Amino acid sequence: MPDSAAVPPATLNRLSIYLRCLRRLEQSGVQRVSSKQLAKQFRLSATQIRKDLTQFGEFGIRGVGYDVSQLSARLARLLSLDRPHRIVVVGMGNLGSALACHIGFNDGGYTVVAGFDNDHQKIGSTVGHLQVHDIAELAAVVADTGSEIGVLTVPAEAAQRNYTALADAGVRAVLNFAPVRLKLDPRVQTKNVDLRLNLEELGFFLGPRGVA
Amino acid sequence: MPDSAAVPPATLNRLSIYLRCLRRLEQSGVQRVSSKQLAKQFRLSATQIRKDLTQFGEFGIRGVGYDVSQLSARLARLLSLDRPHRIVVVGMGNLGSALACHIGFNDGGYTVVAGFDNDHQKIGSTVGHLQVHDIAELAAVVADTGSEIGVLTVPAEAAQRNYTALADAGVRAVLNFAPVRLKLDPRVQTKNVDLRLNLEELGFFLGPRGVA
Repeated sequence: MPDSAAVPPATLNRLSIYLRCLRRLEQSGVQRVSSKQLAKQFRLSATQIRKDLTQFGEFGIRGVGYDVSQLSARLARLLSLDRPHRIVVVGMGNLGSALACHIGFNDGGYTVVAGFDNDHQKIGSTVGHLQVHDIAELAAVVADTGSEIGVLTVPAEAAQRNYTALADAGVRAVLNFAPVRLKLDPRVQTKNVDLRLNLEELGFFLGPRGVA
Repeated sequence: MPDSAAVPPATLNRLSIYLRCLRRLEQSGVQRVSSKQLAKQFRLSATQIRKDLTQFGEFGIRGVGYDVSQLSARLARLLSLDRPHRIVVVGMGNLGSALACHIGFNDGGYTVVAGFDNDHQKIGSTVGHLQVHDIAELAAVVADTGSEIGVLTVPAEAAQRNYTALADAGVRAVLNFAPVRLKLDPRVQTKNVDLRLNLEELGFFLGPRGVA
């Protein structure tokens, strides 16, 4: 079992994918699967699957493969998808509101429980199933709800201040959508999601002379 | 200069970051910068900077460093940030609408020019600066606007169909937010953005026993 800090995001993302595939197999009543079958059915790499799982002490049995339910349960525990997580969203603009209601943020143990803003037009309103609170209430609501994750969707210039507020409020992880290099707080695990970078990545492939 | 397909996303993302840093230096009137200075000022790795840039034929001069404007222009060209790109958004729900108006998708050469949906309640309405079109008009609008990029924000079950519609309409790249493993079309460069994976990545660090 490797040290947390040593596991690259790409590996964790693959574990998530394997878990989804295993759950689909479980639903179809499949009890055992080899890395080769898994790879073929879900267009993955068998070698990569074996390498990734070996890293976490999971070894398929030659000729028999992996026990689907057991491996699925083990991966769920690793990714802590075997227990609920409550999320708060700080910055209830368009993106914050969309993410607060996003199915992926309100499914399989994850639930967004509150939104926060400093705009008095927004405070007290509801967005989907959520109430928008005054940012001044952040620490109280995080404590009351036992929220562990903060989603940061404020403008760039407000990001550092609200990031610190989330850390002070006691969340243990932050998903930051503000296009800012935050000064990281050692109390929280921080993951930056820069949506713009995805566009620029595509730009590389579009090349200097496009059809436009 | 490596083959397009051989450049990992993480490298491209770093080039984007370097470009942003260089542009900030340009704005401050800085003309030359070493990898060491760049690394220190923006909390990057000097070794990584040199390795990444060497891969694209950019060598700093020992004791002098890189020419800021020249390197910035070169990276902008590589990422095709030196020319405009028009974007269409397919699926104008909460997430699609938020992304269509997102500053990162409407800045520095990128512009969202149209949204599409199949919901008659939405067709004909405006979201921010955009008109929501009938999905049936996709090919015509892509051709008229010279749009190169499609952002796919439809529900999972509608993703493959609309992905194919984007490819048929002639876009050259797709940013897919639907949590689906698409059957890829060789005509388009495709980048999957699974927001949920970011949460699961944080889950790994939250561990099996949280504060909740």
